[in-house]
Amino acid sequence: MNPARRSLEIVEHDEPQLGSATDVRLRLLEVGVCGTDREIAAFEYGDPPPGSEHLVIGHEALARVVDVGTGVTAVEPGALVVPMVRRPCPHASCRPCRSGRQDFCATGDFRERGIKQQHGYMAEAVVDDQEYMSLVPEELRPVAVLVEPLTIAEKALEQVRHIQRRLPWGTDGHTAVVLGAGPVGLLGAMALIVAGFETWVYSRSPAPNQKAAAAEAVGARYLSSETHSVDQLREEVGTIDLVYEAVGASKPAFDVLSVLGTNGVFVFTGVPGRKAPVEVDTDRLMRDLVLRNQVVLGSVNAGKGAFEEAIGHLREFDRRWPGAVRSLLTHHPIEAYEELLTGRAGGIKQVVDIGEEAS
Amino acid sequence: MNPARRSLEIVEHDEPQLGSATDVRLRLLEVGVCGTDREIAAFEYGDPPPGSEHLVIGHEALARVVDVGTGVTAVEPGALVVPMVRRPCPHASCRPCRSGRQDFCATGDFRERGIKQQHGYMAEAVVDDQEYMSLVPEELRPVAVLVEPLTIAEKALEQVRHIQRRLPWGTDGHTAVVLGAGPVGLLGAMALIVAGFETWVYSRSPAPNQKAAAAEAVGARYLSSETHSVDQLREEVGTIDLVYEAVGASKPAFDVLSVLGTNGVFVFTGVPGRKAPVEVDTDRLMRDLVLRNQVVLGSVNAGKGAFEEAIGHLREFDRRWPGAVRSLLTHHPIEAYEELLTGRAGGIKQVVDIGEEAS
Repeated sequence: MNPARRSLEIVEHDEPQLGSATDVRLRLLEVGVCGTDREIAAFEYGDPPPGSEHLVIGHEALARVVDVGTGVTAVEPGALVVPMVRRPCPHASCRPCRSGRQDFCATGDFRERGIKQQHGYMAEAVVDDQEYMSLVPEELRPVAVLVEPLTIAEKALEQVRHIQRRLPWGTDGHTAVVLGAGPVGLLGAMALIVAGFETWVYSRSPAPNQKAAAAEAVGARYLSSETHSVDQLREEVGTIDLVYEAVGASKPAFDVLSVLGTNGVFVFTGVPGRKAPVEVDTDRLMRDLVLRNQVVLGSVNAGKGAFEEAIGHLREFDRRWPGAVRSLLTHHPIEAYEELLTGRAGGIKQVVDIGEEAS
Repeated sequence: MNPARRSLEIVEHDEPQLGSATDVRLRLLEVGVCGTDREIAAFEYGDPPPGSEHLVIGHEALARVVDVGTGVTAVEPGALVVPMVRRPCPHASCRPCRSGRQDFCATGDFRERGIKQQHGYMAEAVVDDQEYMSLVPEELRPVAVLVEPLTIAEKALEQVRHIQRRLPWGTDGHTAVVLGAGPVGLLGAMALIVAGFETWVYSRSPAPNQKAAAAEAVGARYLSSETHSVDQLREEVGTIDLVYEAVGASKPAFDVLSVLGTNGVFVFTGVPGRKAPVEVDTDRLMRDLVLRNQVVLGSVNAGKGAFEEAIGHLREFDRRWPGAVRSLLTHHPIEAYEELLTGRAGGIKQVVDIGEEAS
């Protein structure tokens, strides 16, 4: 977080070698860039491996298996895979990590590839254990770099479905508002529509713009916070049953929380930077939470199940809306890294092409 | 809410008569007084039945069945019962109300006896349908007026248990903080201890005092916010897994929310009055919610299942801590109504004795 030297550069690493019998070696094909990467590149976040003076960035990856250890049964050389991000903490007392649910790690001593104490995927090759690999069908080669950002919505929706089973709720005929129209928001909107929600995307820029067009292409309705206040949003939607926050700023999020409907759920997924305290009508917020039986849920990272769900859903999105998912992507060569990590590139999701078979 | 005439008085009603075949007539024995009653008596809350210029108050009741309609099968004359508070809305589209879960009413058009559009229980006799009655064993006659306030914790804990099953959590070895040491808080602490939580009660007044003694008598640890900051509270507790808010004020609640642990749940049950907005570090709140996978839950009212659970638990409390539950109660004659509803009576839970067999 507070390194002696701050620079972004391409460095030479030795080719990584298989260590244990269950290791696989991956050739990276594509790596997505997100806000966390930009925070790391601004040296506001991130933590290199112990003993290392640098951190290899990148956690949204698509790769091909090129070599496997003698004990590998889950994948074969040639397989297309998306590797998971988080690795379990070492503590025997951590029930989530000991159950394969390190996305709920109770100790905070997990590692995350490309973020926290372990090198990431913006590299030609990496070695990792087979258990962190999710197999991707070849037809999803053009879009599977979006599996990881989609897992954010998958984990959130899995939890929402579970939580709402505590009352007679169901999902048919329900409304959802997605807050923010970046990749996480737009993928979340697609997942919500497939799950049966009538879905609005609420974001800053007035339509027409590329993000509004992407939202409307999949059947979401797009409203701008510059033309519609949260009260006007509520009037358009009627009862807001679910809010999926994907904007990473607390002020607009708490504004929308104030119009959440009875029995509604508000999911936070963004990690905001630290700004000054803001004034909140906490009495009203508390009254509404109680009298309306509301739930506010924070969700981070995702388990293996969410990766599998995301792969299934990407296929479903492609079937329903041909071309819509691919239109989110803008491809760049690795040499563009500085602009991608520190500038404001156009498009919706920036992807770095690494391997030779990149489309 | 804004009546032409504001006064508190004892009025004469005709003896209520059985209407439908499933009606029962109750002779009231005891009625508890809570903060909602005091808000209604201050004309800040509450709503009389349509066409009525007054509202009979009282929703925490213990009664004896004295007469039943020809179709009544659930109770017999002589039975001890606690009647529910909320009545379903009339809308066919309201799935919760149509499923007997009017505590999750989606339309807001429910009624509540003694609170909203239906007379309450601070009366000699009432008539109601058998489906809202929960049978109470005779041994609980001295304490069963606490069933209704205990249902707040029962509904909340039922939801917490359900919600936490979304991850490898379990309840053994977990910690809970109860915020507030009134009857709802102390009954909540007992329920949490029975459920296996190591439980702290965090309230304003420094010990020794009657509420601290009541908390400690059941094995909770009592800390005062005047001697322990929320950071000191966290140091005492370690990881705070659950907070059960029973204080009805948002400022201390949001203070404690800031020290909730990873995978923790914060339950709001209080309905605060409206004060000025306060400054909250919403960025930090949002970061913690997300990075710690936290849940904030608002909970109001309770379903039939929670009444049954509360009756079972009161018996368990009496078995574990003989005399502890009864020590929460201070009995008064109905003539003390004005002081009870507008003054600051001592003790923990104020109870009005109505029927002739009152203890």
